[in-house]
Amino acid sequence: MSDAPDVEFDDRGLVPVIAQDAGTGDVLMLAYANHEALERTRETDRAHYYSRSRGQLWEKGATSGHTQSVREIRVDCDGDTLLYLVDQEGGACHTGHRTCFYRTVEGEHVGREEFDPDDVYD
Amino acid sequence: MSDAPDVEFDDRGLVPVIAQDAGTGDVLMLAYANHEALERTRETDRAHYYSRSRGQLWEKGATSGHTQSVREIRVDCDGDTLLYLVDQEGGACHTGHRTCFYRTVEGEHVGREEFDPDDVYD
Repeated sequence: MSDAPDVEFDDRGLVPVIAQDAGTGDVLMLAYANHEALERTRETDRAHYYSRSRGQLWEKGATSGHTQSVREIRVDCDGDTLLYLVDQEGGACHTGHRTCFYRTVEGEHVGREEFDPDDVYD
Repeated sequence: MSDAPDVEFDDRGLVPVIAQDAGTGDVLMLAYANHEALERTRETDRAHYYSRSRGQLWEKGATSGHTQSVREIRVDCDGDTLLYLVDQEGGACHTGHRTCFYRTVEGEHVGREEFDPDDVYD
């Protein structure tokens, strides 16, 4: 018998995942996982997601090298959101920023740039 | 002219919102905002969301007193996720925990209890 909480996937088979830097506490990104992405993450300790636009499983950093090593996975009270606590290699954001949340809603730039995306992506 | 990023609401008119404790960095909860909830949050500096189950605008803490005072709102690279940086009164979670992410996916209890929900909710 296990006390492991049930994870509630939505009608698309997805659950939102917040990735947080385990060291600094920075919220890095929000993405989605399906059952397979969660299982692969648990097996490998590398963050996996499901890309809604590409319609496929996605290992974070497989192209860019900016992988996320997962220290812990948490589940919220309702079981319908996950939190990956990660060690982020380089930057989490495809724009080159450390975190995807590099702007305020007023448009102020508050994030740090880690890399030039032209050097990383084709 | 403004550099304010566009917020991309989904086909339900919603955008996911991560609430993070501005002091400790704890990720507190994930909820959803519609356009009105975001506007009310910006006007009042109190976190507002849209309850999908109740189908209505919702001021966090209106019932429990566990309000969120919003210091800053961030937008992610794609404009389709928000981050509220908040000062949380009491606990964010209806279970009485400080954060909704009080369990690991293996079922370990890692969160702190702030209040007895029986004392707060009818």
